[in-house]
Amino acid sequence: MTAMPTAQITPVVLSGGSGSRLWPLSRADYPKQFIPVAGELSLIQQTVLRTVGAGFASPLVVCNEEHRFVVAEQLRAVDVAPRDILLEPVGRNTGPAAAIAALHLQEAGAAAEDLMLVMPSDHVMADVPAFLQAVIAATPAARDGALVTFGVTPDRAETGYGYIEAGDAMSLHPDVCAVARFVEKPEAARAEQFLAGGRHLWNSGIFLFSPQAYLDELEAAAPAVVAACRAALAGSTRDLTFRRLAAEPFTDCPATSIDYAVMERTRRAAVVPLAAGWDDLGAWSALWQLGEKDTAGNVARGDVLLHDTRGAYVRSDRGLVAVAGLTDVVVVATDDAVLVTDRSHAQEVKAVVDRLTAAGRTEATAPSTVHRPWGSYRAIDAGDRFQVKRIVVHPGGRLSLQRHFHRAEHWVVVSGTALVRRGDETFLLRENESTYIPAGTVHRLENPGRIPLHLIEVQSGGYLGEDDIVRLDDGYGRVPSQ
Amino acid sequence: MTAMPTAQITPVVLSGGSGSRLWPLSRADYPKQFIPVAGELSLIQQTVLRTVGAGFASPLVVCNEEHRFVVAEQLRAVDVAPRDILLEPVGRNTGPAAAIAALHLQEAGAAAEDLMLVMPSDHVMADVPAFLQAVIAATPAARDGALVTFGVTPDRAETGYGYIEAGDAMSLHPDVCAVARFVEKPEAARAEQFLAGGRHLWNSGIFLFSPQAYLDELEAAAPAVVAACRAALAGSTRDLTFRRLAAEPFTDCPATSIDYAVMERTRRAAVVPLAAGWDDLGAWSALWQLGEKDTAGNVARGDVLLHDTRGAYVRSDRGLVAVAGLTDVVVVATDDAVLVTDRSHAQEVKAVVDRLTAAGRTEATAPSTVHRPWGSYRAIDAGDRFQVKRIVVHPGGRLSLQRHFHRAEHWVVVSGTALVRRGDETFLLRENESTYIPAGTVHRLENPGRIPLHLIEVQSGGYLGEDDIVRLDDGYGRVPSQ
Repeated sequence: MTAMPTAQITPVVLSGGSGSRLWPLSRADYPKQFIPVAGELSLIQQTVLRTVGAGFASPLVVCNEEHRFVVAEQLRAVDVAPRDILLEPVGRNTGPAAAIAALHLQEAGAAAEDLMLVMPSDHVMADVPAFLQAVIAATPAARDGALVTFGVTPDRAETGYGYIEAGDAMSLHPDVCAVARFVEKPEAARAEQFLAGGRHLWNSGIFLFSPQAYLDELEAAAPAVVAACRAALAGSTRDLTFRRLAAEPFTDCPATSIDYAVMERTRRAAVVPLAAGWDDLGAWSALWQLGEKDTAGNVARGDVLLHDTRGAYVRSDRGLVAVAGLTDVVVVATDDAVLVTDRSHAQEVKAVVDRLTAAGRTEATAPSTVHRPWGSYRAIDAGDRFQVKRIVVHPGGRLSLQRHFHRAEHWVVVSGTALVRRGDETFLLRENESTYIPAGTVHRLENPGRIPLHLIEVQSGGYLGEDDIVRLDDGYGRVPSQ
Repeated sequence: MTAMPTAQITPVVLSGGSGSRLWPLSRADYPKQFIPVAGELSLIQQTVLRTVGAGFASPLVVCNEEHRFVVAEQLRAVDVAPRDILLEPVGRNTGPAAAIAALHLQEAGAAAEDLMLVMPSDHVMADVPAFLQAVIAATPAARDGALVTFGVTPDRAETGYGYIEAGDAMSLHPDVCAVARFVEKPEAARAEQFLAGGRHLWNSGIFLFSPQAYLDELEAAAPAVVAACRAALAGSTRDLTFRRLAAEPFTDCPATSIDYAVMERTRRAAVVPLAAGWDDLGAWSALWQLGEKDTAGNVARGDVLLHDTRGAYVRSDRGLVAVAGLTDVVVVATDDAVLVTDRSHAQEVKAVVDRLTAAGRTEATAPSTVHRPWGSYRAIDAGDRFQVKRIVVHPGGRLSLQRHFHRAEHWVVVSGTALVRRGDETFLLRENESTYIPAGTVHRLENPGRIPLHLIEVQSGGYLGEDDIVRLDDGYGRVPSQ
């Protein structure tokens, strides 16, 4: 690998996504970038680790406000310190997100030759050195003002992606081509022609450009977007390590993609071919494609038994899953839901999620393990007037000082040590010790130790909703209902 | 329905079965007769309720010793008082089980005209009046000494059943035919011939005969079986409402079926056609066959969402199961396991269970909810050095006085009232109250109330196996390891 150019490139990681394509593993409230769907690390962790090293600044993350703690925690877990985490009150697609990042970098004093490498947080890249080579190849053109997109060299006649038709190589930058045109998702026959012709590349959604170049083109094409983003940044507030955009101007910003707002209109668009094992994991079938297969072509993960089964993707995050006598099936089991479909119907998962959402089912939106700044919890049992949760508190984690009107809580520590405040008392609770918090009693739970605290909480009462909470003090800046 | 003949018919319910065909719902330790697989009642409950009324004595049940409490509890729940429950130390197939029942009835003073109606406990019969009509039709011949089997009128060319070829009608009993021959499971072409010919019936495994007639024929064909059964009964002991066979003679008894030992050899075999919606539920495909279908031919039970799916059998006993874009699939989800197969491969479930058994997996044998004489328990969470259970105690149920060497227990009552003995103390624990049982402390749990007691038990310790128990006193006659 050759050395990176000396001017700074800031990785801009866009954490969006609806969470429906890899349901039930991903959920609207916990989309796929936060999950180790492929490998041991989550996709956002893989994304930020891709650009650690010479030539790259610390990453800038743009994410939904609801995901701020999980983003911070996941970056911390892989020792990546973001230069900032920008919080969107709502998603407005990639166009505004990149604009916010560009404006923020300019405000922070970006030099004219500094660039931003815009990357979705939920893609995989099998060959990171090849990806970095493509970035190096794109850099001189981007520094000359080009808006460079990365076009994936197709290895199949895919009908699920948009394409970029590459034009002539740029005279000064022979590794970079002009963009002849963008092409919508093609029919199968046309996709075959594209594959045979060798001039068409998949649109990866990854870009390299200078903040100024992007803002100039966006200003020309969609001035309302730039104005709304400026206002949202101007009215932003600091919240610990986060920069929270002003809600109203950003909510009013038109939703648009970088491609639609800028790339398809500008004369400065350029493309660099990318052959690095890229995949956007748009369906379970992609995980089968990428996974390590047994001799019958099955990909299995978790506690899985396959009998007389071929070409299957089977994954269990809870309990035993046995598959017998089937071909090309997809089975995904989580704590609270099981999906069974066929690799060729993997796109229909979205329709399933839409139906669940319409029916008001929490399985469509909420993950079975709920992540909080202090740790996580998971429902393990429920019945009339009671529910049982496993609560995990990170070392140093501290829940808010709170009370509940309608429920009492029994806590049993099963691992680690808890520091408990209950009314006016404060005491330590060790493994195999328990306490009781009557309804109405002010309390706080904290992990003062160096290992995770696990406790079983039995809630008892006539109303057990998460919104029966009054927060009196919170170290994470949360309001009572969060 | 015409009146039943006046002489007594004792229903003899044989509770056997390996539990592998409807896995994961049924398990070796909890086979399908105890589960409401079709309808709201379990199959053994449906079986005993089929013959309640004029002409029938109270049922006699022959079951494995391990299942005695669940049999007693399930009959009690439908208000059927068995005349006796005979406990086999091991399964030796239907031949010895029927012999034990016949000998027991003779011992109890059966009259010469009294009959026994032998029924497996795990079949369904959609049309009970039609079944009773067939029994009435068979009665005179049985009283004349015939061994009558019930032959199901085929409605398809089934290759999964043995057949009975009916001979001529008996001169004195025109509704009853002689048996021309028994036929093994046929090839498809032969099954088609059987269906077209109209002389072949499925072998249902249901019989009507007098105890003496059966014992005479068994004595002639397999005298060792009769001798072993006599010895097992002679050495039997009373245990509450149970009659427990002597272990050694019964264990030494040859295993053989009523068909093989007697029916295929005797000249007194007769057959009555049965057209009553009989099914032995030999595979999940049978439950699809019997189930109520939606317009796309799907049978769904529990929390199930079907999208673009046809001809499926989908059942969830825990959590949401979503199926998309599949045809003829079978999906069964329980607390601890999920099975996915195809209706045409439903027989392969046995191979799956065999592999799980070979791997020593408890999911092959133990149900996720474990039934005890006092109630049941279910694991809801587990981790390093702890596990969490939901325990349900019937009104009046009382666990043994016991202690554990390696684990401490926290109990939180979430519904009902518990009477707790802990060391020298005895106290009541009400909803939302808890207690702690240190390792080594003698304790007992009891439900003194009129509604079920639900409690959450958190076990903590270095060893959490069920066999860490010393029973000091038990109201159900169990030894320490049970």
